Amino acid sequence: MVVGRGETVTVAELLLGRLHDLGVRHIFGVPGDYAMEFTDQVMAFGGIEWIGSSNELNAGYTADGYARIAGIGAIATQYGPGELSALNALAGAMAESVPVVSIVGGPSTEIMRRRTSVHHSFVDGDFDHWARMAGEVTVAQTSLTAEDALREVDRVLGECWSQQRPVYIRIPGDVAVASVPRPARPFRRPEPVTNAAQLDAFAAAAQRRLAGAQRPVLLVGNVPIRLGLGPAVAAFASERNWPVAAQALGRGLFDEADPRYVGVYSGLESRDAVREVVEGADVVVCLGTTFIDWNGLFTAELDPDRIINLGPDAASVAGTRFGPIPMAAALGRLHQLAVRRTRDWPSGVVQSKTSPELDRASSGPITHERLWPAIEALLRPGDIVVAEVGTSFFGLEMMRLPTGASALSAPIWSSAGYVIPAAFGAGVAGSGRRVVSITGDGGMQMSPQEIGQMFNFGQSSIIVMINNGGYATERALEKAVGEESQGYAEILNWRYSKLLAVFAAEGDFVARTARTEAELAEILADIDERAERLTFVEVVVDPADVPEGMPEWSREASAAIYHAKFPAPARLPWSGLT
Amino acid sequence: MVVGRGETVTVAELLLGRLHDLGVRHIFGVPGDYAMEFTDQVMAFGGIEWIGSSNELNAGYTADGYARIAGIGAIATQYGPGELSALNALAGAMAESVPVVSIVGGPSTEIMRRRTSVHHSFVDGDFDHWARMAGEVTVAQTSLTAEDALREVDRVLGECWSQQRPVYIRIPGDVAVASVPRPARPFRRPEPVTNAAQLDAFAAAAQRRLAGAQRPVLLVGNVPIRLGLGPAVAAFASERNWPVAAQALGRGLFDEADPRYVGVYSGLESRDAVREVVEGADVVVCLGTTFIDWNGLFTAELDPDRIINLGPDAASVAGTRFGPIPMAAALGRLHQLAVRRTRDWPSGVVQSKTSPELDRASSGPITHERLWPAIEALLRPGDIVVAEVGTSFFGLEMMRLPTGASALSAPIWSSAGYVIPAAFGAGVAGSGRRVVSITGDGGMQMSPQEIGQMFNFGQSSIIVMINNGGYATERALEKAVGEESQGYAEILNWRYSKLLAVFAAEGDFVARTARTEAELAEILADIDERAERLTFVEVVVDPADVPEGMPEWSREASAAIYHAKFPAPARLPWSGLT
Repeated sequence: MVVGRGETVTVAELLLGRLHDLGVRHIFGVPGDYAMEFTDQVMAFGGIEWIGSSNELNAGYTADGYARIAGIGAIATQYGPGELSALNALAGAMAESVPVVSIVGGPSTEIMRRRTSVHHSFVDGDFDHWARMAGEVTVAQTSLTAEDALREVDRVLGECWSQQRPVYIRIPGDVAVASVPRPARPFRRPEPVTNAAQLDAFAAAAQRRLAGAQRPVLLVGNVPIRLGLGPAVAAFASERNWPVAAQALGRGLFDEADPRYVGVYSGLESRDAVREVVEGADVVVCLGTTFIDWNGLFTAELDPDRIINLGPDAASVAGTRFGPIPMAAALGRLHQLAVRRTRDWPSGVVQSKTSPELDRASSGPITHERLWPAIEALLRPGDIVVAEVGTSFFGLEMMRLPTGASALSAPIWSSAGYVIPAAFGAGVAGSGRRVVSITGDGGMQMSPQEIGQMFNFGQSSIIVMINNGGYATERALEKAVGEESQGYAEILNWRYSKLLAVFAAEGDFVARTARTEAELAEILADIDERAERLTFVEVVVDPADVPEGMPEWSREASAAIYHAKFPAPARLPWSGLT
Repeated sequence: MVVGRGETVTVAELLLGRLHDLGVRHIFGVPGDYAMEFTDQVMAFGGIEWIGSSNELNAGYTADGYARIAGIGAIATQYGPGELSALNALAGAMAESVPVVSIVGGPSTEIMRRRTSVHHSFVDGDFDHWARMAGEVTVAQTSLTAEDALREVDRVLGECWSQQRPVYIRIPGDVAVASVPRPARPFRRPEPVTNAAQLDAFAAAAQRRLAGAQRPVLLVGNVPIRLGLGPAVAAFASERNWPVAAQALGRGLFDEADPRYVGVYSGLESRDAVREVVEGADVVVCLGTTFIDWNGLFTAELDPDRIINLGPDAASVAGTRFGPIPMAAALGRLHQLAVRRTRDWPSGVVQSKTSPELDRASSGPITHERLWPAIEALLRPGDIVVAEVGTSFFGLEMMRLPTGASALSAPIWSSAGYVIPAAFGAGVAGSGRRVVSITGDGGMQMSPQEIGQMFNFGQSSIIVMINNGGYATERALEKAVGEESQGYAEILNWRYSKLLAVFAAEGDFVARTARTEAELAEILADIDERAERLTFVEVVVDPADVPEGMPEWSREASAAIYHAKFPAPARLPWSGLT
């Protein structure tokens, strides 16, 4: 988007134009005095809509959810308190590899140059405290000046796009309104760098490794989702008849209704059939995977010599690294040289253990074993499913996603409170797609406010809230070491069914509570295929009941993380920062 | 408190014992897996109670409010997402000079040493990102080890106490449970350092400066509140018959019912009589004051040669600095050598312009001019008044506080959303004292959750929420430069009267909305002197109406801060970080 008509534009217009070029259509944020020169121009800018958030952390989560669907997101906050409140969300985008542009409206250049004692500061003349803090959780940073605006904006946005991680742009008030030459052409996304000789060498090494392989498997992480490689992976799997396993953080890339999908692989915690396919493979092609404590770092039985690893900008075969090579290029070459798999593998590995049919006559408590198949049955193709860390995340692992579904979760960063704001943002980005949020009472209490914006934007989302009276993760961890649950794991029991009435008139929503299987069956059956009202379902479960996988995770986590009783981690691929 | 009975204690017990010595009786926080080894021991520790917060930012604000009443506060969060969410509250404590101890439960030492890829990290092997961020907003930091626990705990807590600012303590899980020798004696608060010769030189210079002074005045900031100098200032003013003006951030130190109290001084924005007393003084003794943009930095007409400035650990006379001298010592010497003021000064400067009596028959809108005297009339001696930045803060300036009242606000850091959590924390610390919270709809939407804990702790607080449909500060700033209010200043209109029903049963609270002066009169009259129910009053005002002082502030702020149209600031005293 080449903004403006005359010879000049303001620096704010320049930045907004570049954001628009990258696909930003909404900016989430909270206004503030220092940021007014920028936010005033957001309001006047055609093509980008301002959406106010209740607080800055929520704005950050919202932009993260938006970015995961739209490809990029942006938040605008103000210098000091505003930007600091959003830091945790930026850190989450960093850990989970989500491109979010954080724009901070700062004091005028002159105020900073004179080291003036102003509010939103420590009155110490140091105006860079917060920029240094942001520097720890973003991959590129700048404080704009009129002299160098275009080059700096393009540099920082280029890093955001290339690295698929958050960046930080401070725009002082006077700079926001300063005139600069109109950019001659739209922003160009930086082309990934390829070393052709290295790509050839990689292909040759991969071909040698694949020679004679009869049981190859693709294992996908989150990076190919960000890079839009879903179609390429689908074509590969289909044409070469390879099974595809997903890391929990890589779900939604590959169609889980496809017969080649084998399930979620998380080392020892995986279902047996998934382990058989992945750990029994003679070649494992890892595509943007990250192994950490809870998904197999200590328990995966994977021989590094059998791994072909495709990272964002490098690839390796049995530990020998080649680069720079973009993931798409490496995947393309692998696709060419891979041969069709003819050996079968165990099937139906993610089928629910029990029938998804709930007993409409049962006055018994709702168990996780029965709950998650029932929620799975509720999902429709194309849904955006947003799941909280903890109980909901393990529940998500128990479900097979329908075709075209997106799964938003933040299992590396694991920040509770992500779901409601992220679900709102995903709904804005994916207009027309239904959003199903799954959270717990702990997560809900952290950030319920954006439910208000769901109403404001007419989102007919479904919110499922598992009420287990507190923090199930902490309880499970205590149990794993044979200790009693502690009082800090219990939280206040809000009257959740009243919550939606704060944001909308009775009649504009459905808010129901299920305490028995029969009640849950009735409520879920009532959810209309084309419901036009936001629906909130509180599911009361026994605090002692937890989803499949959580006890195993707890035992491993207690041993590995908290008591340092772990073997040296295997040499497993990861796509973390280097 | 010498903890334990045997020869050894754990590092967590050691830390908790030292906190108890400093006056900590409650720790606010959110649990998490990495923090369990610490939080488990909080639960088992006699004398310190765990109070769970809905999220970490709220926990931080709560600890800040608690610290302002109890003298010190503490939060416990977990490594990564937890601690990052609390950073803005720590920064506020830094800016406003509030001693808050931030304790972070971290991964085990071995996990960090091996640079293990674990959740709550960037999977980059760098475990110090968050500690470096905390280093920007705290005055001392440590990551505890068993080898050096006592010395490090005492060093960091000593800095917290001496500097009256936040500190950061990371306690790895294995360190929390490690045994160390039992401390031989309780924590000793560090004695402030005094250079006796410098103190004498200061006194001599001050005496020369005071010689012949007929119109001296005391001007107080926030530092003497933290240092507990209220009685010393009261004795000085009473025995020497000096008038006392307060900076907005110094309110609550000096009894506003005392005839020597002259009102709030904020440079040009002050009422005329206050300016006459302060700017017309022949000597101004500044006690822990801080001048920034909104309270006179650009507009105060104060001759630096007439200023005797008492900082936290140094003092100056007409710009000549003496130190180290603790504020208490300098104040004591000034008290000795000051002579009794015999000249009168203008009286009644903070009397309301209008009668506090509301018209019980008026169906007209509620105006700020009528509202604030009515709220002033509601206040009782000993109340804790907590006021949000923005409208509520200017409203606070329009009220005279009753004897023994505390005023909690954060005007330097100016982070919206402070009030509800801080009010809860202040209520825990000041049990028996009534808490009156004053906030706006914008502030309320940021952090309403801790109302739930107010109920849980049986706090019969009063919450007054000014509903002006958005962010009044932003509107006022636009108006000051002749521009239209922007859409981002408008926020969703929640059904606020429904909010309390999320947290408590109908009948356990009073929630009412006033849209006319008559309705407000009736509601305020109904507030029982000894109300045992939490009372929430929504006051709907015209968005275009703002409290006294706000338009002036907006004009100055627009000119000074955003457009850099300001004179070089005067050489005014401040108590910021050096």
